Amino acid sequence: MCPPGCLHSMCRTATRRGLLKSGFTFGLGAATAVASNPPVAIAATSAKIAFSETIDLSHALYEGFPTFSGDKWFTVEHLATFAKDKVNLNRWTIVEHSGTHVDAPIHFSADGMTADMIPISDMIVPLVVIDIRARAADNPDTSLTPDDITRWEAKNGVLPEGCCVVMNSGWHKLLGNPKFTGNDDQKRNHTPGFHAEAAHFLITERKVKGIGVDTLSLDTGLNSGGAFPVHYEWLGSGRWGVECLANLDAIPEVGAHLLLGTPKVRGATGGPTRAIALI
Amino acid sequence: MCPPGCLHSMCRTATRRGLLKSGFTFGLGAATAVASNPPVAIAATSAKIAFSETIDLSHALYEGFPTFSGDKWFTVEHLATFAKDKVNLNRWTIVEHSGTHVDAPIHFSADGMTADMIPISDMIVPLVVIDIRARAADNPDTSLTPDDITRWEAKNGVLPEGCCVVMNSGWHKLLGNPKFTGNDDQKRNHTPGFHAEAAHFLITERKVKGIGVDTLSLDTGLNSGGAFPVHYEWLGSGRWGVECLANLDAIPEVGAHLLLGTPKVRGATGGPTRAIALI
Ligand SMILES: [Zn+2]
Ligand SMILES: [Zn+2]
Repeated sequence: MCPPGCLHSMCRTATRRGLLKSGFTFGLGAATAVASNPPVAIAATSAKIAFSETIDLSHALYEGFPTFSGDKWFTVEHLATFAKDKVNLNRWTIVEHSGTHVDAPIHFSADGMTADMIPISDMIVPLVVIDIRARAADNPDTSLTPDDITRWEAKNGVLPEGCCVVMNSGWHKLLGNPKFTGNDDQKRNHTPGFHAEAAHFLITERKVKGIGVDTLSLDTGLNSGGAFPVHYEWLGSGRWGVECLANLDAIPEVGAHLLLGTPKVRGATGGPTRAIALI
Repeated sequence: MCPPGCLHSMCRTATRRGLLKSGFTFGLGAATAVASNPPVAIAATSAKIAFSETIDLSHALYEGFPTFSGDKWFTVEHLATFAKDKVNLNRWTIVEHSGTHVDAPIHFSADGMTADMIPISDMIVPLVVIDIRARAADNPDTSLTPDDITRWEAKNGVLPEGCCVVMNSGWHKLLGNPKFTGNDDQKRNHTPGFHAEAAHFLITERKVKGIGVDTLSLDTGLNSGGAFPVHYEWLGSGRWGVECLANLDAIPEVGAHLLLGTPKVRGATGGPTRAIALI
């Protein structure tokens, strides 16, 4: 975990309080929950969602699951075993951002929503997949840009309202390969992520609830060494992210829904999550 | 965590291996996954599920969340804070069975499925709620019996295939009240649960994937002091459970679906879970 450089000004403009003052209401379920108005939550799923197939977009988490720093973020103790105790029971020690997991707005903001405050209906959303695999195979430092979004929209129409936009960089297939973290000999990481301009475009020009990646970070690996521009602007705007998605080749680029089953832990900045595509 | 008394014979008859030998296939997704046959998983949701509303059936988890023993099963460390580090990040130390959580078959069996092995489609199932609130209010040691199931079926028809049968004892409203754990001065617990005969009936006479409770245990509190008959027979049969559900008064006794978003942790005996009703 590398504390990033200070980006006061960006944070100041993007706090939830600031957005509320400016009349911004989209997706701010926590604000309505606090005010106990009728939750945005219900409205958000009042359109019927139907599915007949489910695809698990989660990697299995294990001791030694990769992190950028190489730090061990997840360990297991066996408190009881069936052979000895006739019951199996484990205790985990886990950093909230291990394996396939959610980033709550509070992760990179002073007063954003914690994971338990995000209404579940804001985490069941239309799923859009943007494929940058070919470019990423040639250049691990590439990013998903506004041009990629424009290209996707030229083919599929405007992004569905309230969706999650997911980058398929091909990295979901690299778990276990040194390329997954892309560590170099100067402790930098070379992995694709969202470009800051793409995050900004989605916030200002579209109505999007979340972004997701199949890498360890919403930002590129190089930008996760300190600046984290996407984390600050995106999470600072009150939106969520999901990192380390699996199985992205198995889902269509539009038409599915994404459901994030995140443990409801008070004050959590995120958490290990069962990410499910409903098709 | 109280290691229960030895129930060898029950476990021996109910292992997954035993069930496979006897031609039992219902719900055994892990077996098909290992054998890489077409997963039962897909078939299980090939019927279309539609919903337009979601209800969160999860309690928020916090330090000091009740346990039968009074042991602290969940703690949080703040590794970084926004004020100091411009990022918020926590580490949890958590026993798998804290708060609203799943019990995987391995929890009370030698070789049952771990949480990561249960196909997600086996955790999206028709939701049946059986109301024993009135009786439980008078007697916290009461249990959900085969008669309660018969009564429910007389009104609603036979239990839907592949459902989860949930006990609504009213305990979901008692969080924060000493009655929630029902501790007495002899370290016993007085809380409702499934009767062993009800679990046996559901295994042998119906096709049910899971059972759930709004208390801390599938068994009654008194039976959770050592014998755990429901845990052994139910989980030993390859089925899952979910404990500590919230908001059960908000959902119909039949017609909704239950979705359990359990972190995919290798070898887990269960885990903190986002339980969601799809209506
Ligand atoms: Zn994260
Ligand atoms: Zn449990």
